[in-house]
This record gives sequence, structure tokens and C-alpha cells, in this order.
Amino acid sequence: MMLVTREIHFNAAHRLHNPAKSDDWNRQMYGLCNSPNWHGHNYRLEVTVRGEIDPETGYVIDLGVLKKVLEEEIARHCDHKNLNLDVPFLSGVIPSTENLAVVFWRRLEGKIPFGKLFAVKLFETERNWVEYRGPDS
Amino acid sequence: MMLVTREIHFNAAHRLHNPAKSDDWNRQMYGLCNSPNWHGHNYRLEVTVRGEIDPETGYVIDLGVLKKVLEEEIARHCDHKNLNLDVPFLSGVIPSTENLAVVFWRRLEGKIPFGKLFAVKLFETERNWVEYRGPDS
Amino acid sequence: MMLVTREIHFNAAHRLHNPAKSDDWNRQMYGLCNSPNWHGHNYRLEVTVRGEIDPETGYVIDLGVLKKVLEEEIARHCDHKNLNLDVPFLSGVIPSTENLAVVFWRRLEGKIPFGKLFAVKLFETERNWVEYRGPDS
Amino acid sequence: MMLVTREIHFNAAHRLHNPAKSDDWNRQMYGLCNSPNWHGHNYRLEVTVRGEIDPETGYVIDLGVLKKVLEEEIARHCDHKNLNLDVPFLSGVIPSTENLAVVFWRRLEGKIPFGKLFAVKLFETERNWVEYRGPDS
Amino acid sequence: MMLVTREIHFNAAHRLHNPAKSDDWNRQMYGLCNSPNWHGHNYRLEVTVRGEIDPETGYVIDLGVLKKVLEEEIARHCDHKNLNLDVPFLSGVIPSTENLAVVFWRRLEGKIPFGKLFAVKLFETERNWVEYRGPDS
Amino acid sequence: MMLVTREIHFNAAHRLHNPAKSDDWNRQMYGLCNSPNWHGHNYRLEVTVRGEIDPETGYVIDLGVLKKVLEEEIARHCDHKNLNLDVPFLSGVIPSTENLAVVFWRRLEGKIPFGKLFAVKLFETERNWVEYRGPDS
Repeated sequence: MMLVTREIHFNAAHRLHNPAKSDDWNRQMYGLCNSPNWHGHNYRLEVTVRGEIDPETGYVIDLGVLKKVLEEEIARHCDHKNLNLDVPFLSGVIPSTENLAVVFWRRLEGKIPFGKLFAVKLFETERNWVEYRGPDS
Repeated sequence: MMLVTREIHFNAAHRLHNPAKSDDWNRQMYGLCNSPNWHGHNYRLEVTVRGEIDPETGYVIDLGVLKKVLEEEIARHCDHKNLNLDVPFLSGVIPSTENLAVVFWRRLEGKIPFGKLFAVKLFETERNWVEYRGPDS
Repeated sequence: MMLVTREIHFNAAHRLHNPAKSDDWNRQMYGLCNSPNWHGHNYRLEVTVRGEIDPETGYVIDLGVLKKVLEEEIARHCDHKNLNLDVPFLSGVIPSTENLAVVFWRRLEGKIPFGKLFAVKLFETERNWVEYRGPDS
Repeated sequence: MMLVTREIHFNAAHRLHNPAKSDDWNRQMYGLCNSPNWHGHNYRLEVTVRGEIDPETGYVIDLGVLKKVLEEEIARHCDHKNLNLDVPFLSGVIPSTENLAVVFWRRLEGKIPFGKLFAVKLFETERNWVEYRGPDS
Repeated sequence: MMLVTREIHFNAAHRLHNPAKSDDWNRQMYGLCNSPNWHGHNYRLEVTVRGEIDPETGYVIDLGVLKKVLEEEIARHCDHKNLNLDVPFLSGVIPSTENLAVVFWRRLEGKIPFGKLFAVKLFETERNWVEYRGPDS
Repeated sequence: MMLVTREIHFNAAHRLHNPAKSDDWNRQMYGLCNSPNWHGHNYRLEVTVRGEIDPETGYVIDLGVLKKVLEEEIARHCDHKNLNLDVPFLSGVIPSTENLAVVFWRRLEGKIPFGKLFAVKLFETERNWVEYRGPDS
């Protein structure tokens, strides 16, 4: 089995805020990440697919095809957007890096035409990132 | 003469919008960067000071001191903030990378305790950046 | 068990082309990667060895020794070469990143003097890469 | 299960030397790394925690909290220090990257307030690194 | 005056060979870079434009516009191509990084719609690069 | 005129300490950098040469030749060494990044076989660096 990865980027605003909690709770829990007028990041997303090499092509999946899936399913909706307000499939989600990774996994899972989704790795900054390998991991 | 540089980072939301122009003009000029609910970036700021080496210390300026100036004057005000709404010294400024660099230059110019401000380089993404070397450059 | 990794680089030309298929099939499948006069990459290869720490040395394997193995077995043959034409151990292989990783694995497997080969990770660009952990993975 | 990672940096001197062995053995085994007057590195440490997402916060662990643990337990003791001479918890340890990773794992294991320590990855240079996933890995 | 930069990438094959010289001269002068069946690189191109900030837009030049110029004038012709054989505007040019930078400068000079071309910086690898600032520099 | 650059790396220990001053002065001035048992860095050195392109080769200077000069003159003496104790040409020099850059400039100035030394850029960490362009700059 082979793992193949494609990286994409999107730039978005967000705010960590749990509306079921008080403003004090939110300020104390999230600190600067709760800043009311939003802040933002250059997100880096690495998506890994696991599969057998097709002997006719030498590919698990054409990484150009995977790039198109990632742009269609993720970047088109999130790039230059507000993750709390503008993205229908993130509605009601506290946009922590962890939660974003889970939602991206669910959105991508059925859309990979060759191989099987193996990992979604999301960098909020170059020093902070998360990795999700699905509900069975 | 020696050039010494310190790099800092801040994560902020912004939107490119000229309020003196119509919404149509703004959409056409700025495209996604005009997105109404903001987007954001991990900004990278490199500040260069030019000066003679102090023979007693071997320093032009202690880069730990320069870091403190950059955090006090820039990062403290911009990190996890909305550059259009939250930063008094950016009030009325269209927060393009170019304009941010000029404002940061003016703000830093009188605050460098050793040597002289030489360049402000600001990265909006790893593939887009600007450099300003002052009004006489 | 400890994982230790050494990274090397080589610069090579290649072309994706399956000679058992028509020119049309190749153009449609591989697009620009089928360009007849070759193109090329700065390949980055990360090789990971798994093993116990030798208490006398503190090493799983001296990474200088691993580097020499990688240069002798891979870089010496592939660097500044055409992967389709110049490398005997790649003869008949469609040089996709996936296929290269498998061939490199097989070539390295018996040559690691301490520990056991764990992973071969090959970057074709900074945004596209593959990882192979052997036939039992 | 989600994996979350925080990266920190520290700059230290060290020397590879096994005092139970002769000087000749040490020179032959370690080469330049045995250089008697020390050398040094900008170490990069990536620490990964595995856990469930807390639905109230969207976090496995606040990465700001994890950063504080890493600075308190590791960086405060190792940064701008000599790893052979200055760090009580490294006393008697040959400071190979492998051994450092194991000691850091043991030191961090009981100090992670949410989730469970999953991996300690330590880069001695950008081309040489190790990863340790605990005694049961 | 402000300097603004956009970075693009292209992957190409090439060979250093002066046809006016003997094969021996070429082998001795260029070593592996003269390898007859080509090799290749992931080229990184940074193009800098110098100009005044337009107060209406906050831009010297929209970096999205600059990106399109670079893709139209350079990447479309060089990406996944052989720089010795496939690129009309490189015909007869020994494709050293220096020569490529000069040719790219000449090709771009008249095509920058705002500001003035200031520098062309071309990376053959992450450790080797050149910068050209025009015939008057 | 063309600028060509080659990057090399070396890993060394050092300590900032002015022996003409008291221990108190040194501790206060240099803080952690004065730590008595040394610390260290992965230094990154970028050396730029300025010159005309030789039309026969397409080179200002073969960057492989420049690399050899840098290894012979700098890396061979500094790599895996203590910059305060082990390097004859640094004897009596407080090894600040600034002072190192000046000494490296003087050492390299007469040793560049083609073109003229233009800049010595030395990174102590990825966030702190200096650049020296000679006594006439």
C-alpha cells in the first residue's frame, strides 16, 4: 500500500467562540482566539490517500485530480472567506483546527475517485497543526 | 555598515475595500480580497536595521531588543486582530500589504534604539510580499 | 522502538509514458507530464529506519552512515540523470513518484546495516509526495 | 481520535562522547560529533498529543497550554545550554538525538493535562531527525 | 518607492552544453550538468516590481495581475518543458540560471502594466540562485 | 551585472562574552547568550558574488566552485567546532553574528576566482540574521 499526498492552501478569517457559553467563559477559554472582530490564517491542508499503484499509470491517484477535488470541495468554499459565517458546511461548527479537520474528512471521504482517504492534516500556523485519520483510527 | 534582521509573525483578519468607491468598483478591483466578512493571513514581518558594529558588544543592535520593539509596536496591536477595525494606527488605511509596510515603517522609525531602520519586508503569503525602504528610497 | 530519518536530494529529468499504450492515451492520462522532450524535478528523499537504540553509541544507526548508503544506492545513480534512460535499476519502470518509491525501497531494503527500513518518502515538488512502508504495510 | 502537534525550538551545545570508552573509540565512532570543545544545533522539537475533541471547546488540548508545558519542561532547561553539562535530567545521557527524544518523552509523559502523549519528533538539523512514540511502540 | 514580489514555480529539464566547444570541454566545464540525456529542476522564480502605491487601491500592482503575467510569459512556456529544445525564446541560449534570468528579464520588461521591473531572482535549487536587476545595475 | 549565491551550513558552539568586561556586564548584556558552558546553532551562510556572465559558460562563477571555496575557507574550520576556542581566524573575536560575517567577508574576499564578493549573509536562527556587503557599503 502506498500513501500519496497533495498540499493546498487557503486564507481565511475565523474566531473561536462557543455561543452556548458566556462571553467570560469564551474569553477565558480562547484568549486572543476569541477576539470579537475575527483574525485569520494562511491554512495549509495536506490530504493523504492510501491505495495500490495502478500498473498501467504508475499512479495511486493522479495528484492533479486530487488537487482538483480539494479545490472544488474545500478551497473554493473556504479561501478568502470567514469560516464562522460564510461556509455552509461549517455552519454551527466552532472552527478550531481539530473541528475543521473532521469536517474536511467527512466532506472528502466520498469524493476520492481512486484509493481511500487516509489522513487530513491541517496547519493553522507553521508551529501548530492537527492530523485526523478518520473515525476508526 | 552591517544589516541585521529580526523576523516576527502575527495572524490577522482584513479586507481590501476603498469606502470612497462603489461596491462594484471594490468587487472588480479586489476580487476575493474584498470578501465582505473578512479573510485573514499569517503575516511574516522582517525588519532590518543598518548600523555600525559596537566593538564592545559585537552587536549593531541586540536582536532580542529589536524583537521586543517589534512586539510592542506591531504584534501586540495586530496579532489576532482585524486590521480594518481594531488597530488605531491603521484607522482609515486600506490594509494592502504595501500600505501596512509604510505604516509599520513610520511607526518603527523613531523607536529603534541603535542603528537606523533600513527595511520593512512584509509577507502576506509565502508567495506574495512587499519591501519598503523608507521615503528616500 | 525509535524512528530515525535522513533526507537527501537529487535533480533529475523524467517523463511519464506507458509504451504499451497509444500516444493519445498517454497525452490524455499524463497531460504535461507526458511532454516528449522530458521535464525535471528537484527530488527530496526522506528515508526512515526503525530500530532499538544501541546503548553504547546512543544511535539506532549513525545518520552519516545512512546518508552514505542513500548516496551510494540512490543519488549516485539518479542525480543529474534521466530517470527513463540512464538508471539501470529503473529500466522498464514508468517513473511516477509512486513507482520510484517502491524501487528505492527494494534497492535499500537489504543495505541498511543497523535497524530495519521503515519508510521511503519521496517529494516530486513541495506540494506533491508519496510514502511507501513496504509490501506488508 | 485526533493528533495535535506543537513545535518549539531551542539552541544548545553538545558533544557525543561515551566516557566508558577510549578516546580512540569515541573519535572513530562519532567523528566530528566527538569534537572536544563542543558544537551545537538549533533543535526543532515537535510534540504530538492524541485524544478526543472536547465538544465544548473544539480542542483536544489548547496548543497554547501544550506550548507552555514544552517550554517549562524542555526549553527552559535546554535553551542556550550545554546538553552534556547543564541539564540535570540529561545527566549521564549521551546526548544523541535518539536519547534526547526518549528522555523528553519520559519527562513529558505525565505532564500533558489533556489527551495522551503520542510522539516526540526531534530535528538536529533540517536533514536529520528522529521520532519516538513511547516504549510500547 | 515600494518593492512588491510574486513567486511562481515551474519544473523543467535542461542540460548545460556549449555547442561551439568540444565534448571534452563541455564535460570538464559542466560536469554532471552536461549529462547528455538531460536532468531537471523545480525552478522557483521571484519577480520584483518597483513603483509608487496607487492611493485608490493601496497597490503598486495587483499581485494577482503580476502572477498572470508571469504565468503567461514564463511558466506557460517553460513548465514541464525542456529548456534547451522546447522554448522558442530560449533558442540558442545555454540554459544556465544566469542566462535564464537575463532572458526572463528581457521578456518581462515591457509586460509589467504598473510600476517597473526591478529584479528577477531564479532558484535552481534551494541552495543555488541568481538575481538580475537589469542592464543598468 | 548579475548576482549569484550559494548557501552552505555549519553547526557550531559559541558563547558571547567580552573578556575585557566584568562577569556582571556580560550577563546583563548578553543574557542567555553568555551562558558559561556554551550553546550552539545550525548556522546558514549565503555568499553572493557579483559579476558579468562569461558568454562561453553562461556562468558568473560555477556555483560548484564557489561551494568548494566556502567549504575550504569557512565550513572546514567552523563545522562541529567551538567558535570561541577552535578557529584560529576567529581568535579574539566576540562571535556575534555580525562579527562572524565581517571575518568571513575578509577571509573570502581574496579567494573568489571569478566575479567579486558582494554579500555575506549569516543566519544564526531562521528568525535572526545579518548581512554584510563590505567596508565600502
